[in-house]
Amino acid sequence: MIKVSMTLLGDEIMQALEKNMTGVFNENRIVDQIRALGIDMIKKAGSGHPGIVLGAAPIIYTIYAHHLRFDPKHPNFFNRDRFVLSGGHGSALLYATLAMAGYDLELEDLEAFRQLGSKTPGHPEYGKTPGVEMTTGPLGQGFASAVGMAIAEKHTEALFKEKKSDLIHYQIYCLCGDGDLMEGVSYEAASLAGTLKLNNLIVLYDSNHVCLDGDTISTFNDDINKRFEAMGWEVQSIGDDIDAINKAIAKAKLSEKPNLIEVKTTIGKYAKDAGKNTIHGRKLDDEDVTLIKQSMNMRDIPFTITNEALNDFQGIIETRNGSLYVDYLNQVEQLNEEAKKLLEELTNDHKKIDLLALDYEPSEEAQESVRLASSKMLNSYAKSSELIIGGSADLASSTLTYLHDMGDFSSSNYEGRNIIFGVREFASAAIANGLALSGYRPFVSTYLSFSDYMRPAIRLSALMNLPVVYIFTHDSITVGMDGPTHQPVEQLVGLRAMPNLSVFRPADSNEVIGTFRSVYESNMPSAIVLSRNTLPIIETTSVPLVQKGAYIIREEERKLDGIIIATGEEVSLALEVSKTLMEKGYDLRVVSMPNIGLFLKQESEYQEEILPAGTRKFVIERSSSYSWYRFVYNDQSLFTVDQFGESAPSKDLDEKYGFTKEIISLKIEQQLK
Amino acid sequence: MIKVSMTLLGDEIMQALEKNMTGVFNENRIVDQIRALGIDMIKKAGSGHPGIVLGAAPIIYTIYAHHLRFDPKHPNFFNRDRFVLSGGHGSALLYATLAMAGYDLELEDLEAFRQLGSKTPGHPEYGKTPGVEMTTGPLGQGFASAVGMAIAEKHTEALFKEKKSDLIHYQIYCLCGDGDLMEGVSYEAASLAGTLKLNNLIVLYDSNHVCLDGDTISTFNDDINKRFEAMGWEVQSIGDDIDAINKAIAKAKLSEKPNLIEVKTTIGKYAKDAGKNTIHGRKLDDEDVTLIKQSMNMRDIPFTITNEALNDFQGIIETRNGSLYVDYLNQVEQLNEEAKKLLEELTNDHKKIDLLALDYEPSEEAQESVRLASSKMLNSYAKSSELIIGGSADLASSTLTYLHDMGDFSSSNYEGRNIIFGVREFASAAIANGLALSGYRPFVSTYLSFSDYMRPAIRLSALMNLPVVYIFTHDSITVGMDGPTHQPVEQLVGLRAMPNLSVFRPADSNEVIGTFRSVYESNMPSAIVLSRNTLPIIETTSVPLVQKGAYIIREEERKLDGIIIATGEEVSLALEVSKTLMEKGYDLRVVSMPNIGLFLKQESEYQEEILPAGTRKFVIERSSSYSWYRFVYNDQSLFTVDQFGESAPSKDLDEKYGFTKEIISLKIEQQLK
Repeated sequence: MIKVSMTLLGDEIMQALEKNMTGVFNENRIVDQIRALGIDMIKKAGSGHPGIVLGAAPIIYTIYAHHLRFDPKHPNFFNRDRFVLSGGHGSALLYATLAMAGYDLELEDLEAFRQLGSKTPGHPEYGKTPGVEMTTGPLGQGFASAVGMAIAEKHTEALFKEKKSDLIHYQIYCLCGDGDLMEGVSYEAASLAGTLKLNNLIVLYDSNHVCLDGDTISTFNDDINKRFEAMGWEVQSIGDDIDAINKAIAKAKLSEKPNLIEVKTTIGKYAKDAGKNTIHGRKLDDEDVTLIKQSMNMRDIPFTITNEALNDFQGIIETRNGSLYVDYLNQVEQLNEEAKKLLEELTNDHKKIDLLALDYEPSEEAQESVRLASSKMLNSYAKSSELIIGGSADLASSTLTYLHDMGDFSSSNYEGRNIIFGVREFASAAIANGLALSGYRPFVSTYLSFSDYMRPAIRLSALMNLPVVYIFTHDSITVGMDGPTHQPVEQLVGLRAMPNLSVFRPADSNEVIGTFRSVYESNMPSAIVLSRNTLPIIETTSVPLVQKGAYIIREEERKLDGIIIATGEEVSLALEVSKTLMEKGYDLRVVSMPNIGLFLKQESEYQEEILPAGTRKFVIERSSSYSWYRFVYNDQSLFTVDQFGESAPSKDLDEKYGFTKEIISLKIEQQLK
Repeated sequence: MIKVSMTLLGDEIMQALEKNMTGVFNENRIVDQIRALGIDMIKKAGSGHPGIVLGAAPIIYTIYAHHLRFDPKHPNFFNRDRFVLSGGHGSALLYATLAMAGYDLELEDLEAFRQLGSKTPGHPEYGKTPGVEMTTGPLGQGFASAVGMAIAEKHTEALFKEKKSDLIHYQIYCLCGDGDLMEGVSYEAASLAGTLKLNNLIVLYDSNHVCLDGDTISTFNDDINKRFEAMGWEVQSIGDDIDAINKAIAKAKLSEKPNLIEVKTTIGKYAKDAGKNTIHGRKLDDEDVTLIKQSMNMRDIPFTITNEALNDFQGIIETRNGSLYVDYLNQVEQLNEEAKKLLEELTNDHKKIDLLALDYEPSEEAQESVRLASSKMLNSYAKSSELIIGGSADLASSTLTYLHDMGDFSSSNYEGRNIIFGVREFASAAIANGLALSGYRPFVSTYLSFSDYMRPAIRLSALMNLPVVYIFTHDSITVGMDGPTHQPVEQLVGLRAMPNLSVFRPADSNEVIGTFRSVYESNMPSAIVLSRNTLPIIETTSVPLVQKGAYIIREEERKLDGIIIATGEEVSLALEVSKTLMEKGYDLRVVSMPNIGLFLKQESEYQEEILPAGTRKFVIERSSSYSWYRFVYNDQSLFTVDQFGESAPSKDLDEKYGFTKEIISLKIEQQLK
């Protein structure tokens, strides 16, 4: 919160400057001061995006002044409205607004824009700035995650209603630009939002017909109104004055559909290259800033705001939202036990879930599809916690992630816990981020090969540290006949290399149980990678040891000739190889390593115990070798896949790609001789 | 081509079976025989997708019988119409049609559906089957690459017209389903196609309102006609009879816009679960097949087609297309030299490009932005060959990939060689695939961080071995203030791990020259990864040695204490580190490794010469460590980044993340002691 201070101008100067003031207070003066702060930040940092700051200021002002239900002193209270800046390059605009609106941001914070450790990073980052609801910057995803937040609100509202409470009611606002709407992910999410009739969603579209490389006319000529109407949205199209924006939002709140409000703006308004693409991400010099401020009838005194503007802005907010938080606390007070418990879970930062009852014992037939085991575990956990909600990008029948007897989430059933995402992998993940930001522990599933479609959103889960669970089945060339488009090779290492993503690849039903425990006891974004096939249940696999990342499943009997490390489907193959080699007189240990990252976090004693230095190590994994060089001394020790697969029965591929116990044991034997 | 053979039924049985025949020949009988072949294939393979085979057969039949200009004996002649099956799971339908239409596919090939080494893989694969124009399966991409092919046709037509030839004129047909249209990438491509007025594109939409997990009503309620009209398309909506399809395509050919023809079909027509999602990808048993064939008044004799159907189908094609290839050859004969040369280049399989003139010397100031060097090289090559066309996903001003004085590709200027892709990374790459399939050497650019958005299409470039050039700038945490969303970490190893993608990361302007040479002398899909920053030009970097993947840029002076491997921006840092260590008495070799994959392909003597075994090695790269374990003995030897970056000036990040010569030389010294 910016307090009135010595850096503010005196009243005399102000009166002179505010000569154009017309009403009781002049709202446009507040908007201009937001603009001025924004460009001061960009000027000082020497980089940033003045175009959106100058163009979209009236939109964000109107939302915060007249509509958004929030309390700057309690920025995270659960029933608040959410505001998502999808065009994250407008961060300076957002920070300036938040600071003036009374959030815990000082002028010094604004001056530290884009500096190490500041509260005001180059693009908005979740957790770094009060009032910032999510990390944005990669275009289109803010829009899609806002759809996720709207789904979350509808679902939460329904869950509370089931529990005889009408506590929950909030609105999702999103500010997006041309770039966001060109991205496919925003289309995917918008189409689903229309189907789901998410009328709690109001997207304001900063329509300036300019993108980074030029006028949008050369690349983007959608009739946006018609396009969104075709997807079941309510659309309005207006100019950029506060009154029009105000009325449009008021109208949108009454709609039975999701809302798009096209606000026709001028990018870089008041700058000398206003309306042109050059102002989008340009550095500003002294002359630029002075000129812009002159156009707004302001003197160029950096990081200066008037008492009047500040008081007026905070006053209007206080009048509207002053009692919001207290009223909420009172309502919470009166919740019944069941509702209170749910609220506590939704608002608890560490979303550990304990299994109430495991409705599942691994198959007695000593073999089971790990997809099926995963399905049983997911359903068991879903019964244990209402926080689990999710779905598949049209592959639930194959990834087996349907939540039985929990209904489909639809416009006529917002209690449903299965989200029918459609063939929209990317949006499904971005929506899961929105759900996680709203208190849930969502899951999303598709084939591992198609995890590529959602990578940008997985990255945001990881960056925001959201407890999203990604379930990826069909995890190697053993997919077989569907061929190389459906056979992942490089995806696994790509996920493992992503910072802050915990990647599991369980070997059998026991490790599936251990994986789900580990996932739901932690609070990290996770990926569970599963074979499509029926796998033998191995006597020596362990449920609890999964969380160590790796452990011994076959001890050497007399001497340690070497160690075979394997994961997932390859663990049983590794056991067969070790058996074959034993018959030839070689005594190998077998280590199952369901999670490389977790193993590397163990103390060095444990690591040394499992994989003693100096011992020859081999790795079997039907996936890119890049994951494994860390553990071996040379290429010959790796039984991995570094080329694309082929369409053929899995058995034939194993012959061709060398994944039989005969081929591998022979190759290992040659090296041990 | 299927010839009439012993496996075909005799005329008597046929007459009985064709009792419903009405016209001169009964086209529906041909369609049903295509259906029957398709389900025989799926039945025999024990897997596949009967839903689309039974539902969409009339569409594909009508295209091949009445519209597609092709010659099955010369499947690749340049001026042919293209047909793209975007829903690649309909492969059986495509193969059955191609075989019956006279392409080089025997009944035995159909019987080998989904088997190792067959011409009929589970999803269509470019290069494996005559008549298959691209690899499809990952949904949405066929549609987007068809847009790329349409751009290619318009551009090629314009180039030939410039050269006073009207040789080029062909049409792009695409068959897509609900899944394709739900994918964001098809939206992105469709929006661009509308802007570009690609009236040579006819998309037939197999509209059956069913996706894998159920009825589309629960997830996909777009008013498709309205949505496509909003994007500047001509839309028709019809039933699934041949006559209606025929007329709609005829009308579409006259349109001035890209065309969508919605054909309302029944998924799995004639199956007992016709119209339901269960038939989408279900295994078929004997009873299923018999039942389906009964419904079509056919006896169930597997892989059997009638003489009549075959003769009629091939007859109608022959009548329409019989002289196509010869006419084309005659036209080619008459081309002027210039046009002939272009045609040769477009049709040459090995698209090596020789630089005519290098308009570029590295800066004399001994430092230069590698982005700028890249820009100069790209422009030099573009002047050398008309095959180079491409653009950026709205970041050309920043990735510096604009082709100067070569015009923008637009509806009023199809000669233009800069494609203004808009903020549509994924579509840009899928479109590039379409351009490459049409004879070009396209390029695409964005920031390395956003390469994630296009990964699924990069994978198809790699799988199809298309010579697409990806230019990714802003390649590490040195992006600085824009923060972690814009700072890649794991992307580089993700690209390196992708089979058949050649990944370069040049150190300075010299290596940029070497990189471009290596890229354009090869025919592989390539990624050029560039720093955003100005880098010193290193005296010892080499242009020709880039194609060896790695080489020595600093020889040890007296003794070999160790080797520092570095790439890109880190090479000059490695030199500084070696200098600092020299002052302390340690003599280190420095190896620049612009391309790991190329280095690993060198003979072992060369590898050993550069990186002798037994010598201590260190790696400096501001990117995931997963790339580098192959070369070092332990974690301490790696100076890499395995966490997300932060928003701050690059210099501050280097202090924090340990990328200064002081920090690194100290750590290396400790290990050498």
